[in-house]
Amino acid sequence: MDEKYMEMALSLAKEGSGLVSPNPMVGAVIVKEGRVISKGYHKMYGGNHAEVEAFNSTDEDVEGATMYVTLEPCSHYGKTPPCADLIIKKKIAKVIIGTLDPNPLVSGNGVKKLKDAGIEVRVGVLEDECKKVNEIFMKYISEKTPFVLMKTAMSLDGKISTYTGESRWISGEESRKQVHRLRGKYSAIMVGVNTVIQDDPELTCRIEGGKNPIRIILDSNLKIPVNSKVVQSAKDVKTIVVATKKARIQDGIILEKKGINILLTNEVNGRVDLRELVKKLGEQNIDSILLEGGATLNFSALQEGIVDKVHIYVAPMLLGGEMSKSIVGGKGVEHLKDAFRLKNLTSKSIGKDILIEGYVKKGD
Amino acid sequence: MDEKYMEMALSLAKEGSGLVSPNPMVGAVIVKEGRVISKGYHKMYGGNHAEVEAFNSTDEDVEGATMYVTLEPCSHYGKTPPCADLIIKKKIAKVIIGTLDPNPLVSGNGVKKLKDAGIEVRVGVLEDECKKVNEIFMKYISEKTPFVLMKTAMSLDGKISTYTGESRWISGEESRKQVHRLRGKYSAIMVGVNTVIQDDPELTCRIEGGKNPIRIILDSNLKIPVNSKVVQSAKDVKTIVVATKKARIQDGIILEKKGINILLTNEVNGRVDLRELVKKLGEQNIDSILLEGGATLNFSALQEGIVDKVHIYVAPMLLGGEMSKSIVGGKGVEHLKDAFRLKNLTSKSIGKDILIEGYVKKGD
Repeated sequence: MDEKYMEMALSLAKEGSGLVSPNPMVGAVIVKEGRVISKGYHKMYGGNHAEVEAFNSTDEDVEGATMYVTLEPCSHYGKTPPCADLIIKKKIAKVIIGTLDPNPLVSGNGVKKLKDAGIEVRVGVLEDECKKVNEIFMKYISEKTPFVLMKTAMSLDGKISTYTGESRWISGEESRKQVHRLRGKYSAIMVGVNTVIQDDPELTCRIEGGKNPIRIILDSNLKIPVNSKVVQSAKDVKTIVVATKKARIQDGIILEKKGINILLTNEVNGRVDLRELVKKLGEQNIDSILLEGGATLNFSALQEGIVDKVHIYVAPMLLGGEMSKSIVGGKGVEHLKDAFRLKNLTSKSIGKDILIEGYVKKGD
Repeated sequence: MDEKYMEMALSLAKEGSGLVSPNPMVGAVIVKEGRVISKGYHKMYGGNHAEVEAFNSTDEDVEGATMYVTLEPCSHYGKTPPCADLIIKKKIAKVIIGTLDPNPLVSGNGVKKLKDAGIEVRVGVLEDECKKVNEIFMKYISEKTPFVLMKTAMSLDGKISTYTGESRWISGEESRKQVHRLRGKYSAIMVGVNTVIQDDPELTCRIEGGKNPIRIILDSNLKIPVNSKVVQSAKDVKTIVVATKKARIQDGIILEKKGINILLTNEVNGRVDLRELVKKLGEQNIDSILLEGGATLNFSALQEGIVDKVHIYVAPMLLGGEMSKSIVGGKGVEHLKDAFRLKNLTSKSIGKDILIEGYVKKGD
C-alpha cells in the first residue's frame, strides 16, 4: 500500500523534470482514512516545495493524515521555511519517505526533527526509484561536479559509421526525438570541435517548449569555424568553448565578440583537462552534461572518470568493417580487468531501436 | 480464450525442443465444455504426433470437443497416418490452429480436409509465436538449407577483445551457460579454423544430458592442428572440416584417419564458398547451424546471405580502442543503405548481460 502512494508521489515528482534544476524533483501525497486528500510537487526552481504544494491544495483537515514524500523533508531555511516544521504544525501523524536527502550536511535531519515531534516515520519506500529520479541532483549536491551522461547511437556491431564515414542516420526517428527530449532535461550538452567541423550541428533542443542546454565545445586550439551554426547562434544560446592555455588569444577574442564564453584549462596529453573542466562547470552551477562525443572524446571521458551513466541507442543493422569507427575509440583498455564496468544495465525498445542504459561503476 | 489454450499448446510444443529435429515441435490441447480434458506434444523424432498423443492421453469422450494445435494437422501419410483423418474420426467439432504447415507441398491441405468434413476451423491464433518456436523447421522445410544463428558476445561498445587480444571472459556465466543450451538445440556448430588454432575449444554442449552438435570447421587450406581437441575427439563427436579444392590431399587423408569428415567446396575470394556449403549441409540433413565465428567469418556469412538470426550477448563493460576487434569485421559495408538490416529486434537481461535477438531481413 505504501508503495502505491509512493508511486503516485514519484509520478508527481517527474512533472517537475527540466523545470526545477538544480533543485531535486519531489512529489508528495497526503492520505487520510484510505483516501488521497491532496497532492503536490515541486513545480519550478525557487517555487514551493512539494509538501507545501500538497498542503495548499486541499481544504480538508490534514490532522492525523499520512504524508508520502519522495525525498526527505527539509529541516533548514533555504529559499522557503523548513517543510519538517510545517508537517509538525499541520499535525500529520505519519510520514513515509522515499529516500534521505543526499546532501551530507542535512541528510537525516528532517527525519530526526519529525521523530522528535512524535511523528511516525518510515524511510526507504521505492528508494531506488526515488534516487534515480534525482540522479543528477544526488551527484551534484554531494560532489559539486555535473552528472555526465554519455549518449551515443550505434549499429548492433558497435559502429558509429560505415568505413567511408556515413553515419546519418543509424538510429531511428524515435530515438533521435528522445535525444532532443534529453537535451531539454540536461543543463549542458558537450561535444568535441571535430563534431562541429564535420556536422555543423545546432545542438539545440528541437522539442516544442523545450529549454536549450548550454553548449560546450571542447576545442584545445580554438579551431572552431567562426561561420559554424554554433558560433553564429552564440548570442541566443549560451555557448562555452573550452580551450587549453596554449590556444592563441586572438582566436579567443574573435569568438568572444560573437558571444562565445571561453574557458581555459590545463593540458592533459595535448587536450583539455576534463577533470579540471567538470570542476569549473560545477562551480558555474552546471549540474548535468549530455556528452555527445565521438569515439576519441568518449574514450577520454571514460578514462578521466567523468562519465556517470551511458545511454546507447542500438539500431537494427550490422555494418562490419575492421576500419569502421566504434562508439569508444582511443587506445582502449589493455586488459579486461581494466574495462570500464557498468552496473544496472537495462534495455528497452525505442521504435525499432533498443536503448541500453547503465551506470559507470566507480571504485566499487 | 483461444489465446489462453494456444499458449498452453505452445508450452507443450517447447517440451520437444532438441528432441524432434528435423521435425517441428508441436503441442495440442483438447478442451470440452470449458475444461481441458487432454494434452499432448511431439516428444521425439519418429514418435507420435501431438494430436495422437492428446487423443491417447484421455479416456474421456472427445466428441464435440475443441482441439488447439500449434501447427496445421498433417493430411498425408508420413511416418504416421494423417492426423486430420484421426481428428475427423474422433468427431472433434472445432480445430484452432496456430500456423499453417510451411511445407509448400502440403500447406493448407489439413485445413481443407477438416473443413470438408464439416469441422469448424480457425487459423492464426498466436501465429507469430507458433512460427517462432519452429523457425528452424520453417526455414529448412521450405529452402532445404540450414537455419543459421550467428551468436556472439561483445562489450557494450561492440568489441570481442581488448586491443591486446584478451577476450576471456567478456560475457557472464549465465550467458555462457545459455550458449551451451543453444548448442544442444542446434544440429551443428560452425567456427573458423583460427578459433581452433587460438582457443583450442571443444565445441561441445556442456549441459547434462545435452546432445553434442556436429562440429563444422571452415579451413580452406587444411591447416587445423592434428593435436587440437576437436581433431582428437573427432571419433566421439561428428566433425566436418570444410576446405577448398586447393587444399593438399595428404592433409585430408591424415585428418580422415582421425575420424574427421572432409567436405570440399569451390573457392570464393580464396575462402570456402559459404552458399555452396550450406546447400551441401542441408543435403546431409543438417537443419540448423550455430555460427560462433570471429569478426572475419561473421562478415563473410552476412555478406553471403546465409545468416537468418543473430544472438548478441552484450556485457556490462566498455573496452574502447581503435584497434580492438569488433564482432563483425571484414571490409564492412560502404554505404548505410547497404547495411545488413535486422527486424524484430528484442532484448532481455541474462544475468548481468543483455541478450539482443533479431532476424536478418532478406530482400524485404
